[in-house]
Amino acid sequence: MRITWPVPEPLMPADVHPALAATARAASVAYGEARLAFTRLELREEVADGADGTPTMRVDAIVEGAIADAAKRNGANLLSEEAGFIDNGSAETLVIDPVDGSANAAFGVPLSCFAGVVVRDGVPSEALTVWFDTGRAWWARAGEPTPYRTTGRTALDGASVCLMRPKRGTEEAWQRVANRADRIRVLCTTCLETALVAEGSVDAFIDVGSDTHRIMDLAAALVTVPAAGGVLLDLRGRPFTFDHDLSRRWSGVAAATPQLAEALIEVALG
Amino acid sequence: MRITWPVPEPLMPADVHPALAATARAASVAYGEARLAFTRLELREEVADGADGTPTMRVDAIVEGAIADAAKRNGANLLSEEAGFIDNGSAETLVIDPVDGSANAAFGVPLSCFAGVVVRDGVPSEALTVWFDTGRAWWARAGEPTPYRTTGRTALDGASVCLMRPKRGTEEAWQRVANRADRIRVLCTTCLETALVAEGSVDAFIDVGSDTHRIMDLAAALVTVPAAGGVLLDLRGRPFTFDHDLSRRWSGVAAATPQLAEALIEVALG
Repeated sequence: MRITWPVPEPLMPADVHPALAATARAASVAYGEARLAFTRLELREEVADGADGTPTMRVDAIVEGAIADAAKRNGANLLSEEAGFIDNGSAETLVIDPVDGSANAAFGVPLSCFAGVVVRDGVPSEALTVWFDTGRAWWARAGEPTPYRTTGRTALDGASVCLMRPKRGTEEAWQRVANRADRIRVLCTTCLETALVAEGSVDAFIDVGSDTHRIMDLAAALVTVPAAGGVLLDLRGRPFTFDHDLSRRWSGVAAATPQLAEALIEVALG
Repeated sequence: MRITWPVPEPLMPADVHPALAATARAASVAYGEARLAFTRLELREEVADGADGTPTMRVDAIVEGAIADAAKRNGANLLSEEAGFIDNGSAETLVIDPVDGSANAAFGVPLSCFAGVVVRDGVPSEALTVWFDTGRAWWARAGEPTPYRTTGRTALDGASVCLMRPKRGTEEAWQRVANRADRIRVLCTTCLETALVAEGSVDAFIDVGSDTHRIMDLAAALVTVPAAGGVLLDLRGRPFTFDHDLSRRWSGVAAATPQLAEALIEVALG
């Protein structure tokens, strides 16, 4: 069975970097066309091994292909999950997660998104996240405030927390955080969940220690969450770097405030 | 802070019962206006105790008020979470969950919906679920096939399962199911999660035994999931009834097939 709901055009903010906007639009179009052309089973078929060492689903390959074309047309380099680094001779590199929440995107769960940043000399200048199924976009420039704000919550008790799904070896940490938070959710799309932290719809998102995140899973949040008053940290304090080594992994913690991030990390580490 | 995203008009199928369609439209309008008029904090403020014995948030009260007006204008009785039974002198009763996923709706997590059925002589004839943030609607008549189908999956191994969030006393059952399923999600909106089962985007939804569901949390799924080829059962085999006693509770299990429902129930009961 195919996914028959349409993928709308992104509600693109006015001042988005042209190459970033172009890749986001290309991603939405490609994902929408892929949903019409392929069944759920075909969308999730593993068609290759990505540059990050994990298998590439057909839906990832299709959307990343469209993004690579758009990056090239717009003269920007690209660092992406499956293809790795593509040098188009620019001083600027787009660091992009073509389809965050790939399994959701392939199965038809309407929670997946495009997420990208513009990086120059290892420093991200702006970020864009687009929720495919609604076209909702969150955009931020590094160091500039956004119209949306985090909740400002500092205490874990009473907090609404999105968790990465429980993974082998981290079940106890997962349970500790779930027991302490007032309300938990597991949406299986880090970039969308961190956007919800930025806009103040949930208090925090945490990977309790599975070290699942690559830099493109966290790059947009690294700009968007602080610009909205929150923080993005690694559970184990590792600095985030934009080099081209896609074997690096982090456990991202996005929170409305530094205090809430610290409280979450303390409980997760036990 | 207010939730600034718009609530679109429902994508209403053509043949929906007029009173059911009218209440769904009224719910969307009321929720959209409430998001503009009140902050997240105000939306979730507890303003009364519902007929079902749980506190009523402002967002529930506002949307239910609009639904009660629409039911009255359309001459249908109403059985609803907060108000209980409202007799408008009809042979037909609308059994409605005004805002499924109330906490999501109040916090701004874009996963909440209207869900209702038309009941005559204790038997539901048709069901409508509308996802507020997208207007997507799932409609079904009892005993008639729908254009969407469940995945048809029979085995729990490899399944994608939505779980009700872990609640005190059911943590072990929750963990057993989470460990067996291939991929889990916790969206905190039963009616939307069972719609995803019906359309084949996830294989199943389960409350592992917290007995949280009232009849209006499951009424739409009771029509929509079987019409799409799946099943809706109570974990403990209790029959679903449409009487006016809102103290009754169930643990709903919606699955793509009877075999998958049985496998889930077996693991949950341990």
